[in-house]
Amino acid sequence: MTSPDKIWTAGLVVIGDEILSGRTHDKNIAQVASWLQVQGIRLAEVRVVPDVESRIAEAVNALRQAYDYLFTTGGIGPTHDDITVDAVAAALGVPVIVHPEARAMLEKYYASRGMELTEARLRMARVPEGGELIPNRMSGAPGIKLGNIHLMAGVPHITAGMLDALTGTLEGGAPLLSETIGCWTAESEVAEILREVERAHANCQIGSYPFFRDGRVGANFVIRSTSREDLGSAVDTLCEALGDQGLDFTPGGI
Amino acid sequence: MTSPDKIWTAGLVVIGDEILSGRTHDKNIAQVASWLQVQGIRLAEVRVVPDVESRIAEAVNALRQAYDYLFTTGGIGPTHDDITVDAVAAALGVPVIVHPEARAMLEKYYASRGMELTEARLRMARVPEGGELIPNRMSGAPGIKLGNIHLMAGVPHITAGMLDALTGTLEGGAPLLSETIGCWTAESEVAEILREVERAHANCQIGSYPFFRDGRVGANFVIRSTSREDLGSAVDTLCEALGDQGLDFTPGGI
Repeated sequence: MTSPDKIWTAGLVVIGDEILSGRTHDKNIAQVASWLQVQGIRLAEVRVVPDVESRIAEAVNALRQAYDYLFTTGGIGPTHDDITVDAVAAALGVPVIVHPEARAMLEKYYASRGMELTEARLRMARVPEGGELIPNRMSGAPGIKLGNIHLMAGVPHITAGMLDALTGTLEGGAPLLSETIGCWTAESEVAEILREVERAHANCQIGSYPFFRDGRVGANFVIRSTSREDLGSAVDTLCEALGDQGLDFTPGGI
Repeated sequence: MTSPDKIWTAGLVVIGDEILSGRTHDKNIAQVASWLQVQGIRLAEVRVVPDVESRIAEAVNALRQAYDYLFTTGGIGPTHDDITVDAVAAALGVPVIVHPEARAMLEKYYASRGMELTEARLRMARVPEGGELIPNRMSGAPGIKLGNIHLMAGVPHITAGMLDALTGTLEGGAPLLSETIGCWTAESEVAEILREVERAHANCQIGSYPFFRDGRVGANFVIRSTSREDLGSAVDTLCEALGDQGLDFTPGGI
């Protein structure tokens, strides 16, 4: 499903004290961002908030209204610090219910492993009223879809499985295309070139990402556009300008 | 400088299209979070925003007012997409000026390398009026401190140098202490134990972080408190409760 004229946007709320304490390095921002690009949806904002119901609810309400889609990661497991479902229900003003299908999935999952469906595990069948399930082949506990909101796991490989289950189900626009040109130069040497190429190609944005490698400075220039034609034209102009300066550049990036 | 009764908080604004596109995996959230812990300051919220002046200004104004300190990473280099200084000046309603000391630092840095201080490089001497410099030994371009706001580089090892320069200069409270107990169990097996131990130790929070490793499920339980005594007591209670269940646990984490 594509709707090429509209730019579709998403917000992401990353939930968890472990990210804000520095204990856990977040991997979901990049993972969700890359997945959204392929769906033709742009990640427009991320908020990382602690395991506090009011703080989660506030971020959810801000981003679900500001963007076409909202995703959350974290806080949907069985322990006392897993409060995302309660926070989202509070944000929406709906009750939390036990979803019969989720309950059945968990019963089957634990029965097949000779384990009991305890009260703690049953917490993972709780959804804000009106929620549908996002399948999770990894651990039995599903994600939840409710309107434009998608509640996903925090453990990155489980999040990946849920994104996989959602692939192709969301309406999006033309995917943002990108090309990278690497160059062994200080970015400050070519700042004016970059500015001029961007100005001359209205449908393209150019980002400049410097690096230090093998004792030399360089930068990758990433040109982004939803139009393959405009993108190609901007890439050609940039390569020509870098070549005119006698610079050593590499299409595809360094 | 410590002020043990007050909980000091900080917000972080991560600036950059490269994070929101998934191209670059952010490393600054964890880095800033860990550094703040040692300063006795808690990272309370992170927002990731694109290279758009109004969006940066909005996030800066929201977080500088909500928390004791605000940090930003990204967008202070020499290229056209480096607009953090302009955005923060707009947020504060002050003009952008060329800081004489920053100019002198850049002149010295480039002269020592036989390079010219071009107009693009001079962009890195621009500060919102009233800003002081945060030294940067890595690349000459300084960070900026203005009131409770700290503008830092986006390249993680340069950010690290700026944090190092700020170490010990910010007033903070008692550092949040933590202890980790690892256990080879499904976290859902011990959810009730965790809940009870947290309830019995008012000054402690317990986080549960499950993992799958070597074909087995396990979890690390992180107990956090500003009081070493309360922390020790909660750790003892938790270990005792896990032992009573015949579970295999490892102080220090797995």
